[in-house]
Amino acid sequence: MTFKQQICDRILKKKSPICVGLDPDFSKIPSHIPKTIEGLKYFLESIMAATSPYCVAFKPNISFFEALGIPGLNLLSGLREKCPSDVLWIIDAKRGDIGNTSAMQARFIYDHLGADATTLHPYMGEDSVAPFLAYHNKLSFVLGLTSNPGSATFEKQVLQGGMPLWAYVVTTCKDWNVNGNVGVVLGGTNVELREARALAPNLPFLIPGVGTQGGDFKTVYTDSNAAVSPSLINMSRSVLYADPSIAFALGAELALKSLLNQL
Amino acid sequence: MTFKQQICDRILKKKSPICVGLDPDFSKIPSHIPKTIEGLKYFLESIMAATSPYCVAFKPNISFFEALGIPGLNLLSGLREKCPSDVLWIIDAKRGDIGNTSAMQARFIYDHLGADATTLHPYMGEDSVAPFLAYHNKLSFVLGLTSNPGSATFEKQVLQGGMPLWAYVVTTCKDWNVNGNVGVVLGGTNVELREARALAPNLPFLIPGVGTQGGDFKTVYTDSNAAVSPSLINMSRSVLYADPSIAFALGAELALKSLLNQL
Repeated sequence: MTFKQQICDRILKKKSPICVGLDPDFSKIPSHIPKTIEGLKYFLESIMAATSPYCVAFKPNISFFEALGIPGLNLLSGLREKCPSDVLWIIDAKRGDIGNTSAMQARFIYDHLGADATTLHPYMGEDSVAPFLAYHNKLSFVLGLTSNPGSATFEKQVLQGGMPLWAYVVTTCKDWNVNGNVGVVLGGTNVELREARALAPNLPFLIPGVGTQGGDFKTVYTDSNAAVSPSLINMSRSVLYADPSIAFALGAELALKSLLNQL
Repeated sequence: MTFKQQICDRILKKKSPICVGLDPDFSKIPSHIPKTIEGLKYFLESIMAATSPYCVAFKPNISFFEALGIPGLNLLSGLREKCPSDVLWIIDAKRGDIGNTSAMQARFIYDHLGADATTLHPYMGEDSVAPFLAYHNKLSFVLGLTSNPGSATFEKQVLQGGMPLWAYVVTTCKDWNVNGNVGVVLGGTNVELREARALAPNLPFLIPGVGTQGGDFKTVYTDSNAAVSPSLINMSRSVLYADPSIAFALGAELALKSLLNQL
């Protein structure tokens, strides 16, 4: 079974396309939790236990753990075993370097940290993504169109021939998908989502930018849905920090359920 | 004094534009050194002590340390204090994410790991680099044209108006250089080096791809030199692994001296 089929199966079984972004931030966790690594561990494990029945993936962004220094990376490493087997562990790392260096990055993200999937910068081209794609049982999401204002700086620049850079990246990802393990990151605040889906009906999408960043969940779901390809819709801050009280984990669970009721 | 002036001063004082890339690899270190973290520590500290009088920067690529897992990151962290004050500590990390996440990345690279400078992917645009540029006393090198074959995939795509993407990135970096702390990565295997220097006479360049990757040191030096702006020419494998014997550190020193004699 290809990776894509596995995800489709999970989405159907759980009736959820949601990926929960795990971006721990001392300034946002409930005030009763100690602002320590142990406190974050308690916070994240509680969120994971409460939300895992209603999502198909967790997406820790490694940068939020790195910002805590090496103890933060130890925390990320330890969380891996708390992820149930029916939930993908996507480490959002946005890596990419020359070939021999990308091989080192893949070793860290896939072998040491145990990710099922990661995210990659396309800028350095084919040999920068190849070492990740050599892991046939892992899924690599290449940045296509991101959800931040800066997507206008380069991603939306138009190439000779009339195609925006991001669309050309999406098209190139189709060529790279020889082993069925390439996906694309597509920002949910963008009207281009439907265009991207038409360009690449066969690639899994990872969609950030819904919730706090502005995208509307149901619209994104409708625009990105495809009979043959899954879209994972990421929710981070609007789920993690839905309830600032001691009932924060229940709050996250209710936030997810409320989203799923819209479908 | 701006960062650029500081680098120019060091280059003049030491009569060297060389940056030594620290990419530790068990498969390449001399066979008498144990293939352990302690072995790498000995190898790298010996290389640093032997080469620091003849270079203006060290550039550890964080991916080679990450590939060793968290003990590798502890090694990188500990090496910082072995870098003399007249040598820049450039952590080649190729980061970049949406604004609030890039701020976390900058905290890791600049605050926790103590880098003087780092490298950034331009793909996600202005708000993805801004948190790094907010560190006025640090230097951020944005990827312009890289030295790998994959630079043809996207970097060399031509935009409407006729400018290749990489050249547009270089031009944009000039706009971002409000605080004099933006540099550009420009692959040394490319004939476009002179073109880049003409486009951005005022930006510091970091030039990989010389030596093992194919660029010629003296040609690169001539093409990238500018009266008002420094170019740091990176040498990694051809210096680190110049001599596989117990005299590896002397071998690295001699390799550097032989390069400098060409100028």
